[in-house]
Amino acid sequence: MAYVPIDGARLVAPLSSVSNPRALAFRLRCSHIARDMSATIHRIGRGAAPSLEPMLALVAADMNLVNAVILDRMQSQIPLIPELAGHLIAGGGKRMRPMLTLASARLLDYSGTRHHRLAAAVEFIHTATLLHDDVVDGSDMRRGKRTANLIWGNPASVLVGDFLFSRSFELMVEDGSLKVLKILSNASAVIAEGEVNQLTAARRIDLAEERYLEIIGAKTAALFAAACRIAAVVGERPEAEEAALDAYGRNLGIAFQLVDDAIDYVSDAGTMGKDAGDDFREGKMTLPVILAYARGSEDDRAFWKEAVLGRRISDDDFAHAVGLVQSSRAVDDTLARARHYGQRAIDALGIFPSSAAKDAMIEAVEFAVARAF
Amino acid sequence: MAYVPIDGARLVAPLSSVSNPRALAFRLRCSHIARDMSATIHRIGRGAAPSLEPMLALVAADMNLVNAVILDRMQSQIPLIPELAGHLIAGGGKRMRPMLTLASARLLDYSGTRHHRLAAAVEFIHTATLLHDDVVDGSDMRRGKRTANLIWGNPASVLVGDFLFSRSFELMVEDGSLKVLKILSNASAVIAEGEVNQLTAARRIDLAEERYLEIIGAKTAALFAAACRIAAVVGERPEAEEAALDAYGRNLGIAFQLVDDAIDYVSDAGTMGKDAGDDFREGKMTLPVILAYARGSEDDRAFWKEAVLGRRISDDDFAHAVGLVQSSRAVDDTLARARHYGQRAIDALGIFPSSAAKDAMIEAVEFAVARAF
Repeated sequence: MAYVPIDGARLVAPLSSVSNPRALAFRLRCSHIARDMSATIHRIGRGAAPSLEPMLALVAADMNLVNAVILDRMQSQIPLIPELAGHLIAGGGKRMRPMLTLASARLLDYSGTRHHRLAAAVEFIHTATLLHDDVVDGSDMRRGKRTANLIWGNPASVLVGDFLFSRSFELMVEDGSLKVLKILSNASAVIAEGEVNQLTAARRIDLAEERYLEIIGAKTAALFAAACRIAAVVGERPEAEEAALDAYGRNLGIAFQLVDDAIDYVSDAGTMGKDAGDDFREGKMTLPVILAYARGSEDDRAFWKEAVLGRRISDDDFAHAVGLVQSSRAVDDTLARARHYGQRAIDALGIFPSSAAKDAMIEAVEFAVARAF
Repeated sequence: MAYVPIDGARLVAPLSSVSNPRALAFRLRCSHIARDMSATIHRIGRGAAPSLEPMLALVAADMNLVNAVILDRMQSQIPLIPELAGHLIAGGGKRMRPMLTLASARLLDYSGTRHHRLAAAVEFIHTATLLHDDVVDGSDMRRGKRTANLIWGNPASVLVGDFLFSRSFELMVEDGSLKVLKILSNASAVIAEGEVNQLTAARRIDLAEERYLEIIGAKTAALFAAACRIAAVVGERPEAEEAALDAYGRNLGIAFQLVDDAIDYVSDAGTMGKDAGDDFREGKMTLPVILAYARGSEDDRAFWKEAVLGRRISDDDFAHAVGLVQSSRAVDDTLARARHYGQRAIDALGIFPSSAAKDAMIEAVEFAVARAF
């Protein structure tokens, strides 16, 4: 058994003998030795396969109410708006961000109803972003369905996105908390900034890991963080709890995105509605590519340069890319980075007393970093 | 001299003898007989050619402060954002909407500074809308310059628009008035709804005037109304004054848009940065087209049907279209409708005492309805 240092902890895992990252992740979960056995310290990979079920059960009743708000507030006298928005909103979304708002409210024993409207606002911001993302990327598939821009065209997607974004602010204004408005308007600006940052980094093989982390911190993690933090605001909890929930969401968001980037090079078609190779074929710069490029030979680098310019999009090219990210341990280490952030998310919850909600939120992180497997 | 009824008033003008709408409008201004000579009743076309100068002078000092906020808050660590936003924001915009906020604040003798930030927020909403509009329309020229989407591409325009929109909400949140936030978030949603409405009405020759008015009421007038109304909110004025300023802005917005639509069929290249025939060549359904179609022969209607489908885009086609809107009096009556709304805008100011600000705001309306000539 080799000891491999990961983020200061030592995990028992014969890494060198494992080439399949799924098997690796499974072993990491099963063979993990906690540094501290205190009941209040939760570490990723405690044993049984983690599940999102506890989280889903925790928020199920609230989520029905959030869905009612979403359906109600995406209506308009202009039929195209609910038609297009409904395609995406009703179309198999995981509602992850509103789920985080609801779970965080549960964690804090919040007994009001304000979080339903705000969770809907968060989902609207996310949906608007997805609509615009698909236009920007020229995507034709999302969550296993044709994209709105493919069906209704780019103009409709841009404008309905704008509508949902405006509607989200209306929901926040109805709630009436300037603090919530500040958190979510800031998150929105950060997301947009991150999107532009990503755009200017597109197809640049020399993208540094630091800048990549900045991008996903803005594009993905900022809204995760805000979704959690606003629960503490409506619950009127101290700043430390706000900050803790922010850190939970932010780190979970980064972990989530890293895993998403990793599974592009390992997943079967259809995992989370994403086909393996989607990112590759779009020439997306993600951490697996950054690491494989940094660690590659001259030939490997030449291949990646061509790939991100969109000149390597065949199945054989993708198979070659998968070989490179595996042999360079780029996927393994992307997942290791994900576990690092996942662990930070879990540790951020340390200031909250034990509860079913806390357990569910911890397991959701474990699920997120294991979801590809 | 023939008496032609326009909106209940009777204007002296030998309309039948005037084929040039510029000359017509000039005569209308010069030969107009006011129904009531009371000093407190202002009617469009009081004599001398109206000017925007009094309005510009009224707000000049404040506008410098607004421009400073705009320049400061369009900055970002991502260089593409200020570069792209600056192209449009610094590029000859009239700042009409922030000007309305500033002028309204002057009208109310507001002595604070909150309106500077809010006027910048209003301009950001407008700029975001323009960026997305140009993507939606595939426009390549605006204000006599190449559009941002032409220079930097649609993705960048979409995302920087999102950024400015988010930034506008951040500015409003900093101001801290939920009432202002409500007014502007509602206006934003209405604008987006109007954009989608317009999109679904695109190239539909059967567009009714009523629906067209709904569209410009949402797309253009809603933000004019909100820009004026928020001045009353920061000035802590009674609801009646809020409503009066809203009505002023809304009617001015409609008048402004109607004139904009009319001058497409009469203006020389470069008037207000707009070339004659732009709308025509894009197959845009505007009031001149609606009226000319409704009043046209079978042949005329066949022409317009082809035109809005984009099959009549030559200079000869445009010359033919100009002939039709002139002979059907479609441009004249579009301008008459504009004067109707302009008069309503002026009358909405009736509850405010006389002042230099009020005079400037009245003259701005007169200028707007005469600006093509």
